[in-house]
Amino acid sequence: MEAVTYELKHICKQTGARRGVIHTPHGDIETPVFMPVGTQATVKSMTPEELKEEVKAHIILSNTYHLYLRPGSKLIKEAGGLHKFMNWDRAILTDSGGFQVFSLGDLRTITEEGVEFKSYLDGSKHFLSPEKVMEIENDLGSDIMMAFDECVKYPSEYEYVKQSMERTTRWAARCKAAHKNTEKQSLFGIVQGGTYKDLREKSVKDLVEMNFPGYAVGGLSVGEPKELMCDVLRFTTQNLPEDKPRYLMGVGTPDYLIEAVLRGIDMCDCVLPTRIARNGTALTSHGKVVVRNATYEKDWGKLDEECDCYTCKNYTRAYIRHLVKSNEILGIRLLSIHNLRFLTKLMENIRKEIENDNLLNFKNEFYKKYGYKD
Amino acid sequence: MEAVTYELKHICKQTGARRGVIHTPHGDIETPVFMPVGTQATVKSMTPEELKEEVKAHIILSNTYHLYLRPGSKLIKEAGGLHKFMNWDRAILTDSGGFQVFSLGDLRTITEEGVEFKSYLDGSKHFLSPEKVMEIENDLGSDIMMAFDECVKYPSEYEYVKQSMERTTRWAARCKAAHKNTEKQSLFGIVQGGTYKDLREKSVKDLVEMNFPGYAVGGLSVGEPKELMCDVLRFTTQNLPEDKPRYLMGVGTPDYLIEAVLRGIDMCDCVLPTRIARNGTALTSHGKVVVRNATYEKDWGKLDEECDCYTCKNYTRAYIRHLVKSNEILGIRLLSIHNLRFLTKLMENIRKEIENDNLLNFKNEFYKKYGYKD
Repeated sequence: MEAVTYELKHICKQTGARRGVIHTPHGDIETPVFMPVGTQATVKSMTPEELKEEVKAHIILSNTYHLYLRPGSKLIKEAGGLHKFMNWDRAILTDSGGFQVFSLGDLRTITEEGVEFKSYLDGSKHFLSPEKVMEIENDLGSDIMMAFDECVKYPSEYEYVKQSMERTTRWAARCKAAHKNTEKQSLFGIVQGGTYKDLREKSVKDLVEMNFPGYAVGGLSVGEPKELMCDVLRFTTQNLPEDKPRYLMGVGTPDYLIEAVLRGIDMCDCVLPTRIARNGTALTSHGKVVVRNATYEKDWGKLDEECDCYTCKNYTRAYIRHLVKSNEILGIRLLSIHNLRFLTKLMENIRKEIENDNLLNFKNEFYKKYGYKD
Repeated sequence: MEAVTYELKHICKQTGARRGVIHTPHGDIETPVFMPVGTQATVKSMTPEELKEEVKAHIILSNTYHLYLRPGSKLIKEAGGLHKFMNWDRAILTDSGGFQVFSLGDLRTITEEGVEFKSYLDGSKHFLSPEKVMEIENDLGSDIMMAFDECVKYPSEYEYVKQSMERTTRWAARCKAAHKNTEKQSLFGIVQGGTYKDLREKSVKDLVEMNFPGYAVGGLSVGEPKELMCDVLRFTTQNLPEDKPRYLMGVGTPDYLIEAVLRGIDMCDCVLPTRIARNGTALTSHGKVVVRNATYEKDWGKLDEECDCYTCKNYTRAYIRHLVKSNEILGIRLLSIHNLRFLTKLMENIRKEIENDNLLNFKNEFYKKYGYKD
């Protein structure tokens, strides 16, 4: 019995989007779901209580690469695991560090065995292999572990993407063999293959044969045009098994979340809501609001009239603008709460509209109001 | 009838320290009290709810000078006053901007009429007079307004301190005449005179004749030795009326709070707890803890075993150290909550010990445990 399982509840008759539940050792997660990112064992500026009560998050993502380098996965193991270390008793998904390591460019060397790289903190040398990554993720104790993969950039040559994808598949097998805590943690495979459909098909086929409890789609939303992303995503998910959750990595703008769900995705994550909060920007039902701008100086309204979050219940745009202009932490906090809640609320609405077989209509209305062009 | 009144409840038989209540239009304040500082209409990193529920603050201080420059006191007036602007419905004390303006050194010019200075934000020229400061504080709508004063540095020549103190007294009279909202706001006078007892005596005498509803002691804890501070403070408070609250400005280390209360002080404020939080330092019953230090890397204990705050209920020193080392906002938040609570809790204990006529014994035990030398 896998630690993490997926239950399909309904398929939207209008769009084919999936409504389900992921069962984990740290609670159930209604899907489709947006997962806030807690890179360094904290979702930036937020307490766990705020994530539960205001954002209404049931799962967060944390970064293996960052935690391995600081404070170290052995220290977190000694603390009793990541949940206990950071005081979060709901589900956690950890990535594999692959995305970060491969982003290092000249600072890393890839071999069949794994990747050698230098720490961004102190320049020290490190080596990550599928086995090492499993050891780290087992030490962290996340509910969902991601296999060690290479995320290739866009555009990349066919031959390179092919070799890389095949290696990612071999690494997935090594990850599966090395994973030591199957009772409490589940390992997801990651589909690669860039924008080449035959490579995506092969990647899916080989991974599905290994029978993972869930699959991520990696290597998308890395610079390719939106239509191409949508096309490759649709192609990829159609071959994934219906009874396993599907996770599109690194996607977090409202339109991409909707498009992903329309193409059969159940889980998404992105640093966007907390990152733009630190720049003084809010996501609202009428589009982005750069609250720093002079136009909001005497705006006594809420960030978003339709929002139910702590920020919108208690503060004006004028006050938040003052905090942002004054570099006050409370400004970042209020915008982070709101932006995260905006995306979890969007997903709540999406779940409802799937149940109502009405997701396409919802999408059209949302796009119009938000100011997106379709 | 004054907006703000003081009720003396008990005098410690062991020390003469005062236990009382300050009544304000925004609730009662048990004294002696420590007031967290919210310089820019926010106590750094904190929400009002955290100040109420975790710190248990009933009054905060905010800075006229900063708010006048940004976002502007007219904007705050338009928002419905400072309480509404920042979503804080308990009491607020505003300083007069005097301390900040006089700190500007070469950037300001003092005349009998007032002070001309340049903005630290954009270099623009401004003029603050007693009348202008009253207009600003009336616009802010604080419960307790401070008169416009000059805080002279230590050491200063007798003649300069004398002239300055006399001008501060004349300004106090002008403030009193200019204060426009006596029904909802009370104006406190500020005793000056540096470390010269005859000047302190004169300052007290002249201000008391004007019959303010409360008095601050300014110009202490500005670099003079602790014994001298204590001596001048004792001398100053003995001549202040018993039925009015007494506020020692800018004092916030645990020992200074205790020494101030021992000398008849009812109110204190300081940026120290939130400032050292941003440097990764905690106040604890066993002294300061620089949680950033390597010694706490695997310390699974609380910041302070005796503390009842959110931070101490939920997080280890090791986790807080990780947050601080990683420059995570949550680290600042957790330390700010704890440090503020440490001081408000110290004042709660002090109030109890005054009631028990036991404050001197309490001081001796506290000093020993904290590691202070008496």
